[in-house]
Amino acid sequence: MHIPTVLAANVEHFQVLVALFLMLAAAKLMAEIFERLRQPAVVGEILAGVIIGPSVLALVKPDDIISIIAEFGVIFLLFNVGLETKPQSIFKVGGRATAVGVLGVILPFVAGYFIALAWEGNFAEAMFIGAALVATSVGITARVLGSMGLLDTDTAKIILGAAVIDDILGLIILSLVSSVSKGSVSPAALAKTAAAAIAFTVFVALVGSRVINRLAPRIAKLKLDKPFFTLGLILCFGLSVASAYVGVAAIIGAFLAGMALAEATEENHGMHKLTSGVTEFLVPFFLVNIGMQLDLSIFRETSTVVLALVLTFFAVITKFIGCGLGGYGLGAQKMAQIGVGMVPRGEVGIVVAQIGLSLGVIEPRFFGAVLFMAVATTLIAPPFIKFFYTFDRDGDGTPDEPEDVDISGDFARIG
Amino acid sequence: MHIPTVLAANVEHFQVLVALFLMLAAAKLMAEIFERLRQPAVVGEILAGVIIGPSVLALVKPDDIISIIAEFGVIFLLFNVGLETKPQSIFKVGGRATAVGVLGVILPFVAGYFIALAWEGNFAEAMFIGAALVATSVGITARVLGSMGLLDTDTAKIILGAAVIDDILGLIILSLVSSVSKGSVSPAALAKTAAAAIAFTVFVALVGSRVINRLAPRIAKLKLDKPFFTLGLILCFGLSVASAYVGVAAIIGAFLAGMALAEATEENHGMHKLTSGVTEFLVPFFLVNIGMQLDLSIFRETSTVVLALVLTFFAVITKFIGCGLGGYGLGAQKMAQIGVGMVPRGEVGIVVAQIGLSLGVIEPRFFGAVLFMAVATTLIAPPFIKFFYTFDRDGDGTPDEPEDVDISGDFARIG
Repeated sequence: MHIPTVLAANVEHFQVLVALFLMLAAAKLMAEIFERLRQPAVVGEILAGVIIGPSVLALVKPDDIISIIAEFGVIFLLFNVGLETKPQSIFKVGGRATAVGVLGVILPFVAGYFIALAWEGNFAEAMFIGAALVATSVGITARVLGSMGLLDTDTAKIILGAAVIDDILGLIILSLVSSVSKGSVSPAALAKTAAAAIAFTVFVALVGSRVINRLAPRIAKLKLDKPFFTLGLILCFGLSVASAYVGVAAIIGAFLAGMALAEATEENHGMHKLTSGVTEFLVPFFLVNIGMQLDLSIFRETSTVVLALVLTFFAVITKFIGCGLGGYGLGAQKMAQIGVGMVPRGEVGIVVAQIGLSLGVIEPRFFGAVLFMAVATTLIAPPFIKFFYTFDRDGDGTPDEPEDVDISGDFARIG
Repeated sequence: MHIPTVLAANVEHFQVLVALFLMLAAAKLMAEIFERLRQPAVVGEILAGVIIGPSVLALVKPDDIISIIAEFGVIFLLFNVGLETKPQSIFKVGGRATAVGVLGVILPFVAGYFIALAWEGNFAEAMFIGAALVATSVGITARVLGSMGLLDTDTAKIILGAAVIDDILGLIILSLVSSVSKGSVSPAALAKTAAAAIAFTVFVALVGSRVINRLAPRIAKLKLDKPFFTLGLILCFGLSVASAYVGVAAIIGAFLAGMALAEATEENHGMHKLTSGVTEFLVPFFLVNIGMQLDLSIFRETSTVVLALVLTFFAVITKFIGCGLGGYGLGAQKMAQIGVGMVPRGEVGIVVAQIGLSLGVIEPRFFGAVLFMAVATTLIAPPFIKFFYTFDRDGDGTPDEPEDVDISGDFARIG
């Protein structure tokens, strides 16, 4: 491509601009098509990534800068979801969310472990494949529910809470698996990692909102233009950094930051609109980047194809059943909503697989199969989420709502 | 810094997050302080960059990713300004803007050229220093005027129009200077570069708005969520890429994209709010990144210090006088508004210097002095912009407005 020589200093900027333009345009074209087909726009945007990515047209190649912008996308997505989530509403379903999170971790891990052994993986490899099946990408579900205006349903709160539990358990498993693969398991170090992650999350969830509520009158008095939006951005980045520092995903920090601000900014529509501008701008890069990870070249080997399909099948089934069981007592539809809401693995599964590859623990065929599973579960779930949230069994024109079911049931009751 | 080993795959993301957090927090802290001192917040945000950058605390180092995010900042800043600028309002002051742009290019170039010769620079070096003094960073002025709600004044329109002319002339000079430094000047190639830049800008400015206005009813009917915002983002990126491709700055494309949408989205406050969310998020990185470029180590050599100060002095004076003269007939206050509005060199001067350095044409001491000039002019201008836009000579409680002055005067009249 012709680029004026005088701009040589800016060639990299130019290429990034071109890549982002193509990602945005492709995402929104596909979103429009999917909306017209009454399918979830997220699926269209992820498929846009598959199409422009290395597997098909090879117009854009995932790289560091794109993956960082993609991460900003999911960070703001969870920040935005947090803004609409009052801490109390999550605490209320805490026991239930824990049940969903725990059950949704055990079953997929076991399935991944044994599938990898069946495909002649070694012990460390099997542990890694198990770990890769554990982590839910809650961003996808949050996006679908958000665009349907359903983030304030009971089951949405349970899914969000369970995703936090899920991420912490995922961290612990990943730490365990990584140290196994290095041949040295230190229970003390593991306990420290787990304790730091849990302490951080619980502390911020409990204290964050109170601190912000108390400071709100002072924040409003700042001379700074748009004080709540500005403080929100700083808190979002700050807690993302802090949570990455203690080892949980940056998006958990972003979610906690949003939740801390939820009460104080509830009526602050201007601030929410500004934040959602950033989110709407960045999220397409997150979705397209997931699609671009799909590597169809694994389909050259039949055994890898079968592995990828089996892995995907069990990734869906075990999360659906495990998390659905966590919702036992809420009725079949809500159990299905929870189950399907936890299915997408998205960027989290991909990151686990990348760590396994970088540690030299997993073979390329396993890596390829996990990538396929991560993208496929993310594409499969949204239509089912839409279905189970709009399905109307009793024909009264609204989705079925089992009445008066106690959704605050704790783990003990169903455990 | 401790980072859990399992996150090794994400160390780079972590570091970027930390850097952006520090930039944002420092920028907004300084903005608050400057607002309290009744000084322009932009100056505080640029100084935040000086403080956390390599010159002082060395907390954050400018790098590729930061500079790309900074560029997004100025792209969205100009896109946002474009959204508030109807094409007609710029066309009306076209002759005047051309006069301002041309005069504001000639004087600084000549000054830079002779200063470099006086400091024993060679011919190619002198040409480059001249070129570095030419380019105005309109983002800074637009930011100050925008935050004062003065973007719809006559002089703001003249400054915006002149900045477009200025950028095109800057491109032509830079092409000329680059080919001189390579020892081969091709008038045909130069003419082609100039023609492409002018044709692109004029074509988009004339046609863009009409096309969008005609398509507006169809855009509104898209199934896509937030259709105008989404199309706006795509157009902004698309025209940024296109303008970079023909050789003018990406921000010119972004400004033209905003302007094309200005009429169709005039009443669309939701869309403007979403866009300004993105702008407010990204602009601090642009400002802080400018400040981080300042390299105080040049102050070790007295002759370089003097060079930097002389360069800065003449950079301010020649733009102020040159552009001010372009406003001849509008009265002293408006002339001063225009003159001071064109003073900041910001990122544009820095890019020219970087190109000179990468071509091996300019020595490090000249590079350091130009960086100093670019940052210093950007820090000096905002308080004066504020002053000349709020100065009230006749004591009637409002800024002086020379009445009934014809601001559409063309270049011929004053030439």
